[in-house]
Amino acid sequence: MLHGKQFTLYTHIGGPNGWKVAFLLEELGLTYESIYLDFAKLEQKSPEHTKLNPNGRIPTLIDHKNNDFVIWESNAILLYLIDKYDKENRLGVSDGNDKYMLLQWLFFQASGQGPYFGQVFWFKRFHPEHLPSVIERYQKETQRVYSVLESVLSKQEWLVGGKPTIADIAFITWNRAAFNVSLKDLPGVDVEKDYPSVWKWHKKLEERPAVAKVLAVQAGMQKQ
Amino acid sequence: MLHGKQFTLYTHIGGPNGWKVAFLLEELGLTYESIYLDFAKLEQKSPEHTKLNPNGRIPTLIDHKNNDFVIWESNAILLYLIDKYDKENRLGVSDGNDKYMLLQWLFFQASGQGPYFGQVFWFKRFHPEHLPSVIERYQKETQRVYSVLESVLSKQEWLVGGKPTIADIAFITWNRAAFNVSLKDLPGVDVEKDYPSVWKWHKKLEERPAVAKVLAVQAGMQKQ
Repeated sequence: MLHGKQFTLYTHIGGPNGWKVAFLLEELGLTYESIYLDFAKLEQKSPEHTKLNPNGRIPTLIDHKNNDFVIWESNAILLYLIDKYDKENRLGVSDGNDKYMLLQWLFFQASGQGPYFGQVFWFKRFHPEHLPSVIERYQKETQRVYSVLESVLSKQEWLVGGKPTIADIAFITWNRAAFNVSLKDLPGVDVEKDYPSVWKWHKKLEERPAVAKVLAVQAGMQKQ
Repeated sequence: MLHGKQFTLYTHIGGPNGWKVAFLLEELGLTYESIYLDFAKLEQKSPEHTKLNPNGRIPTLIDHKNNDFVIWESNAILLYLIDKYDKENRLGVSDGNDKYMLLQWLFFQASGQGPYFGQVFWFKRFHPEHLPSVIERYQKETQRVYSVLESVLSKQEWLVGGKPTIADIAFITWNRAAFNVSLKDLPGVDVEKDYPSVWKWHKKLEERPAVAKVLAVQAGMQKQ
């Protein structure tokens, strides 16, 4: 903890899941030092990192004020942070059934949005063969996820508790990946028109000062 | 609630995620009526079901003793059930950092095990093209997940808190899918030898009376 900040965040410049955690740390005004791992050098799989996170992925968070407690899985980190450091429930919910709705949407994000949206990138950019039927499968799943979100957000402004929470924040980075890459220029798809409530919800989230600040940091790093 | 039981569980005979919830309901001695949706008839996408669960997937749980509270996403359901109905923490953990480790492993299961293991099935059985490089991708990811689990379970018997919890139970059904189908007969792979601690862990979980009882129900239904 030579940097003197409360948290060390192992993360990545491009990977969506690390930035989620940065959004929340900024929102809560917590101090953190980001260590950007170089995936080209497989730093995420290095013994130094896997002794903290056996999964060898990012993000990994160390809380130096909680006896160097280590936690990984981005949505578990979000829940840890609001439980410990958001006592006024600014981005959490008060007890009762909302607490479980928050979990429900976080699991939907983690299991339904992240992995499937991520497959579009893999098969567009990294897979050794070009396989249109596979890219199409995951683009269609991306659209299905937005149909589900639209059916909910057309009736309510936020996912849980009538206010922005970590359940909403968890979707931001993969939304950006979908809107800017996976669904962009896809014939017959216009996110803003097809999913207007989702689009408005996402824009409001991006405009939050803490989120905008972190996105500007990321944009600055990607230019370098 | 004509059936007089505490819960209604919308589930499926083959799908792994519904049985997870049944394991826990049995473990906790709670009464439930299972409604098995017919995916061939798209019953999971019917208005009757999507008004409860806009995601149109299973499981969906209604708690009739909590004012017909509805929750979906299997791991959110597990957390709901232990929070409400496992006050002695038989399958949960007492407070402190273990609570967040429980969340971490549940998110790892939901985002790292379920979706990737499921893709092997899709590309082996349902995808219109036979694509060996895609099946191989997801079989390798299945093996990677087991390497992560082996690295942890070779040093400790259970994932969290030194005892069986819902974090362990959440892995059972997709383990069975991997061991019995995805990794079976794969050249160079022998789960029992390659991941001995994972294998022992899984066998102990399958032998739990509540789990064995539910697995016998499933086996009986699949024979019909």
